[in-house]
Amino acid sequence: MDPTFAIVNWADGSLDSPKLRSSTKKLGQLKGIFRDEDSWQRMDHETVVYRVWWWEPVTPGTEGGLFWGTTEILPGRVGQEYFMTHGHQHAVLDRAEFYGTVAGKGMLILRDENSRNRHEEMSPGSLHYIAGKTAHRVVNTGDTPLRFVACWPSDAGHDYATIAENGFGMRVMENHGKPSVMGDGEV
Amino acid sequence: MDPTFAIVNWADGSLDSPKLRSSTKKLGQLKGIFRDEDSWQRMDHETVVYRVWWWEPVTPGTEGGLFWGTTEILPGRVGQEYFMTHGHQHAVLDRAEFYGTVAGKGMLILRDENSRNRHEEMSPGSLHYIAGKTAHRVVNTGDTPLRFVACWPSDAGHDYATIAENGFGMRVMENHGKPSVMGDGEV
Repeated sequence: MDPTFAIVNWADGSLDSPKLRSSTKKLGQLKGIFRDEDSWQRMDHETVVYRVWWWEPVTPGTEGGLFWGTTEILPGRVGQEYFMTHGHQHAVLDRAEFYGTVAGKGMLILRDENSRNRHEEMSPGSLHYIAGKTAHRVVNTGDTPLRFVACWPSDAGHDYATIAENGFGMRVMENHGKPSVMGDGEV
Repeated sequence: MDPTFAIVNWADGSLDSPKLRSSTKKLGQLKGIFRDEDSWQRMDHETVVYRVWWWEPVTPGTEGGLFWGTTEILPGRVGQEYFMTHGHQHAVLDRAEFYGTVAGKGMLILRDENSRNRHEEMSPGSLHYIAGKTAHRVVNTGDTPLRFVACWPSDAGHDYATIAENGFGMRVMENHGKPSVMGDGEV
């Protein structure tokens, strides 16, 4: 297989390439992310929350280049709060990103540079534009793995610290069996 | 539907969005592209060769932004040469692009800044990285429509003139019922 070549399975978003990179995030690595710290403490910290596979055809930092990846978020909750990604904004702030949902059901949580929140529902086929200067997090609100493909600039980088400090200002909690988006302080 | 939202059908790559743009290229608009000018002259110039639909969530020229599109190349030939796109490189030369094949069979023709040629076979699931400074053209070598999704920087722009002048240095011709990649001058 040519190094400038990968295979994507459009049925589930899975990627195959000799140059694939991957990362697995377990519950123990997501301290402070979920509201219910007691529930988080009691759960098995080895539980996988999400995995990312991605292809970097060029060196990170290359201007004008692009990366392609797939994320899988497993179904689950910490207390009433659904499993979700850590969330980040790009280190080079104006860099955008596309998310394209392939399987499952979820919510894309966005927070722009003026701390304005927005959320978009994710379902198979939904294509989401994450504008520059916008922090983004994905929540699996379904009973099956949520999978989406992504395309982003190779010089975007990741800034996890800002959002870890400021939060997203909204959370997605199960409420009478249904996902409910609420403000950070709401109960 | 939110303006920052679109729907992609992963089975055929088709896009649905209230902000969708589209372009149709007919045979008559592809003068000088195919080698066999006599055959081209005799064919119906209203024949559609390819269509592109794309979503521009931000203004063209925006640094750090991205666009998403779908291209459909219809099956057909001009003489022995398969239907194909005009081909272009990006006006901002270092801007890359991803192509992801969804349906059909084809060939991606690439020509880098040093006039080196390369081609990659396209089939459902094949994901192609088109590096910066690389002119690109797609050829439908099958009997059905070739469809692929694409993601590219919103400040990439299009330069058709350079490739119109220099050509790609290779062509894909039917040879005993099979696609054959040959140099521009080869018969």
